[in-house]
Amino acid sequence: MFIHHHKVQFYETDLMGIVHHSNYLRFYEEARVGWAHSKGLLDYQSPGSASHFAVFETQVKHIKPTFFGDNLQIEVQGRTEGNRLIFQYRLRGRNDEICSVAKTVHVPLGPDLKLLRLPASMKTAMESEKWTETWL
Amino acid sequence: MFIHHHKVQFYETDLMGIVHHSNYLRFYEEARVGWAHSKGLLDYQSPGSASHFAVFETQVKHIKPTFFGDNLQIEVQGRTEGNRLIFQYRLRGRNDEICSVAKTVHVPLGPDLKLLRLPASMKTAMESEKWTETWL
Amino acid sequence: MFIHHHKVQFYETDLMGIVHHSNYLRFYEEARVGWAHSKGLLDYQSPGSASHFAVFETQVKHIKPTFFGDNLQIEVQGRTEGNRLIFQYRLRGRNDEICSVAKTVHVPLGPDLKLLRLPASMKTAMESEKWTETWL
Amino acid sequence: MFIHHHKVQFYETDLMGIVHHSNYLRFYEEARVGWAHSKGLLDYQSPGSASHFAVFETQVKHIKPTFFGDNLQIEVQGRTEGNRLIFQYRLRGRNDEICSVAKTVHVPLGPDLKLLRLPASMKTAMESEKWTETWL
Repeated sequence: MFIHHHKVQFYETDLMGIVHHSNYLRFYEEARVGWAHSKGLLDYQSPGSASHFAVFETQVKHIKPTFFGDNLQIEVQGRTEGNRLIFQYRLRGRNDEICSVAKTVHVPLGPDLKLLRLPASMKTAMESEKWTETWL
Repeated sequence: MFIHHHKVQFYETDLMGIVHHSNYLRFYEEARVGWAHSKGLLDYQSPGSASHFAVFETQVKHIKPTFFGDNLQIEVQGRTEGNRLIFQYRLRGRNDEICSVAKTVHVPLGPDLKLLRLPASMKTAMESEKWTETWL
Repeated sequence: MFIHHHKVQFYETDLMGIVHHSNYLRFYEEARVGWAHSKGLLDYQSPGSASHFAVFETQVKHIKPTFFGDNLQIEVQGRTEGNRLIFQYRLRGRNDEICSVAKTVHVPLGPDLKLLRLPASMKTAMESEKWTETWL
Repeated sequence: MFIHHHKVQFYETDLMGIVHHSNYLRFYEEARVGWAHSKGLLDYQSPGSASHFAVFETQVKHIKPTFFGDNLQIEVQGRTEGNRLIFQYRLRGRNDEICSVAKTVHVPLGPDLKLLRLPASMKTAMESEKWTETWL
């Protein structure tokens, strides 16, 4: 399974002394982009390719806070549902404890923000993915 | 009904030319904080008071993109559910069109990140709130 | 003189309980953009126009910290120097005390990131600006 | 010499298609924190220790833009000047070209935001550092 690593930075904390919740969507994006790159589905040099991941819906659950300097591990799984891409994430912090789980739904958009059909390459890549269970 | 205004800044856009999705959680936080302040439930000078809004769950749906310079209007509604605070949001962009709806769930935490009981003042304030329908 | 107002948001703080220093560049950008818009030099709908403000150099001095909920007031002054735009800023927080001063230098770039000549409209607009003294 | 690596994320870009300038201060903070940790001067678990790096002044020069997916390399050098810490940075992007140089000045502050004396351990660590030349 694809696991993304993120070290929590000082600028990601807030005055409660923990990571601000909006940053989790950024961590999950990092993980999704890393996943797509690892599958050969994303070309960093071609801005259009990133657009295939336009965000339609996000859902994040916070179980435990995370802190400055924590080494986060984020598991990613993806699948298709009609023309949509569904990703789920599980984020572990200190002592490998699950701190957050999330789900994001994406639709393929072109650079002009018009809806596209899901590319066949994406469908094929997704079919070989494991979706063991639903985390959220 | 409480409406929060936010003008989209250049630094809130991404290379797709639209507002990055993680910023919506920031706009919704602004709206929630503004709402709480308007009800006398939040004292900016007392960091502890902000902790009553620790984020437990977020859910955001994106209907239309928003752009640099847009004048966003965000409606907020709140209610309690046992020991939890539930907020819902409706965000309008150009031509007053609804661009995003969201829901966040909060639990009262102290500065030491321990679970607290929902203050009576909060419960009372929430009771007089209107929750006309569910947006998300 | 043009003054931009910014209310410090929760997500702009860090674990020291103060506004994270990287956000000042965002506040100064807000002020610069607001200034340009007020002079009719910036059209939000036209992404290219924003490119005239590509950042070449920034310098920020922090005198006092600012806090969640503070109502910041940012003064802006601009002038040209050859093909460059120079802006200076003075940021006031609680009790109208100066908390930060800054200077940014900009070069006109097209959407293709190529250097442009400073538009005559910009030069003219800048000539009528006051640059009373150097703050930084 | 200490070199920090940062992969540019999608959420760090703006509508010009490049990394937003405010993020460079975040990259430089990452590099500084990584440097301090590598010297044993920073304990992530102890929030107070991070306060030794309160930012007094920043100066950033942008030579070339950086892009989504770029693998940035950031060199860091530090020295003391009386009670102050001075850091300089050199950031390389594509083809190892220098894209930005910067300097930051820090003063030791306690958690109560009061000025402290520079710890002897910091002075000693700095003495053994190389400051080959001034980059900015």
